[in-house]
Amino acid sequence: MTKPSFDVIAIGNAIVDVMAPCADADIARLGLAKGGMTLIDEQRAHELYAAMGPAQEISGGSAANTLAGLAALGVRCGFIGQIADDQLGEVFAHDIRAAGIAFATPARSGQPATARCLIFVTADGQRTMNTFLGASQFLPPAALDEGAIADAAVLYLEGYLWDPEEPRQAMRRAIGAARQAGRKVAFTLSDGFVIARHGDDFRAMVAAGEIDILFANEHELAAVTGIADFHEGITALGGAVPTVVVTRSEKGAYAISGGVHAEVPAEPIARVVDTTGAGDLFAAGFLAGFTRDRPLDECLRMGAICAAEVISHYGARPEADLAALVAERLG
Amino acid sequence: MTKPSFDVIAIGNAIVDVMAPCADADIARLGLAKGGMTLIDEQRAHELYAAMGPAQEISGGSAANTLAGLAALGVRCGFIGQIADDQLGEVFAHDIRAAGIAFATPARSGQPATARCLIFVTADGQRTMNTFLGASQFLPPAALDEGAIADAAVLYLEGYLWDPEEPRQAMRRAIGAARQAGRKVAFTLSDGFVIARHGDDFRAMVAAGEIDILFANEHELAAVTGIADFHEGITALGGAVPTVVVTRSEKGAYAISGGVHAEVPAEPIARVVDTTGAGDLFAAGFLAGFTRDRPLDECLRMGAICAAEVISHYGARPEADLAALVAERLG
Repeated sequence: MTKPSFDVIAIGNAIVDVMAPCADADIARLGLAKGGMTLIDEQRAHELYAAMGPAQEISGGSAANTLAGLAALGVRCGFIGQIADDQLGEVFAHDIRAAGIAFATPARSGQPATARCLIFVTADGQRTMNTFLGASQFLPPAALDEGAIADAAVLYLEGYLWDPEEPRQAMRRAIGAARQAGRKVAFTLSDGFVIARHGDDFRAMVAAGEIDILFANEHELAAVTGIADFHEGITALGGAVPTVVVTRSEKGAYAISGGVHAEVPAEPIARVVDTTGAGDLFAAGFLAGFTRDRPLDECLRMGAICAAEVISHYGARPEADLAALVAERLG
Repeated sequence: MTKPSFDVIAIGNAIVDVMAPCADADIARLGLAKGGMTLIDEQRAHELYAAMGPAQEISGGSAANTLAGLAALGVRCGFIGQIADDQLGEVFAHDIRAAGIAFATPARSGQPATARCLIFVTADGQRTMNTFLGASQFLPPAALDEGAIADAAVLYLEGYLWDPEEPRQAMRRAIGAARQAGRKVAFTLSDGFVIARHGDDFRAMVAAGEIDILFANEHELAAVTGIADFHEGITALGGAVPTVVVTRSEKGAYAISGGVHAEVPAEPIARVVDTTGAGDLFAAGFLAGFTRDRPLDECLRMGAICAAEVISHYGARPEADLAALVAERLG
């Protein structure tokens, strides 16, 4: 097998985050699900935007955030995702390319607009996300560069994108292309609602051996396995998937890979400003170590360091020099 | 005279700032004027954007920033400025209304797009601005709400907008409407290039008694008066304009109003993160005190406190609770 051109190629939502601080009372008044991610239509997006305070726009999207972290750590990345031919689409494309990530999916003409996620951030640093998927949900299977996928060591898939039909078909085709080329498939479960709707798909993919690396948080682990006890759940899943990584917020993270267990505490941090992107950047740090064949506990440490950086400021893309930070913290 | 409906109504550029950190070497390589504001065309805007790192978008515009500060201090404000009918225009309109500022100028259809300012921020906190004026430069005199202007205690005008022809005509008409209603006219000189091109206009307006409150930094003061010595210059201008306010960066600020002189040092700050909006927020704090008939030195202190807040973070709009901050600092 020739050396791949990309270390990681990801398929995900192409989203611009619209972020504003808010009070807990606003969360209640607007009927938002605090700490969660809710899909909204364009009408609701306009209503919520009108109710939101002065905001800032920062590119987001779960898998795209992970790539931004990977690229900052020197990992060669490509992204596949659907923007519309509009100003927010330009913003997304600019930011991902400026982060050093290859991005060639053509913009889609006409409506709907580029996806946006209205994120209300409370004083405790918790983020409440409301996503208008817009153009993102129309990523067609034809937009895949199967050659590039076959030429990437890891294909990374965002669970959020399993929900709309066209991207789901695209991702199934991508999994086929990656597996046929002998590459690894990484999948992040993203959110409880995705598992509620598509858990059977995920369990079937796990049973069929189509997933090599699975990322989840502890709620998603319980939802996908149906096992309430954390250690029982991760041990069960670790017997079916070669590498399982589970994040546990302030309790740190746990992984099982090839029968080896490893665990790290959360990285200490002065103040949690905004938790947006914590899981995405954990995956970035972990995968950066994993693609370089680092020991499992070091991969977890790298994940914890990257997650701690992104929750120390607004926005889900890294701001600090992650490579320097990881080098310093790993010692 | 009836009590006005607005304390301050401002006419200015309707701009979204696109901000990214950069190295000093990038400033040199891209041929940028460090610390300055350069007008650029759409072609150059695309070139510079392509050369820029991952960015964030935050509403800006000099006078609009000042209003955001004023509104945060409880001052009743209205804004007049030209956006295009596009996504960045929506962002600008949302952010200014979400700050509690009345904004009713209709969006302009077709090209050019809403104005954007590409801001490169170096590690020393200095901002280097490159502005594509877009729709902003086509604010037509017909867009003025002369009734609202006549009904505002202070008309605040942004010198940057004196450069393009249509807005200049609109501002001249606005000055007429304000003066006829017996209201005060405040003007900020904005930048040396504006004075280089239109200094004769400004000197004529001063001589004609059309400006009641003039804001400048020390470079602009020297440019408009032709006097190199700071105290000589401000004393000369203070004899011709009822209230003159001059900011001096880390040296603080100085004002002369009705023959009274006052001076304040710069407010102490832990770290200068991004100087964008320093002058704009100084004007906000000063005017908030001025419209409430506070003593001149207190107006300057309020300006210094607001400027210190805005340079302690990214973006030219206040993030902290300015009213609480001013109350705490003034004691």
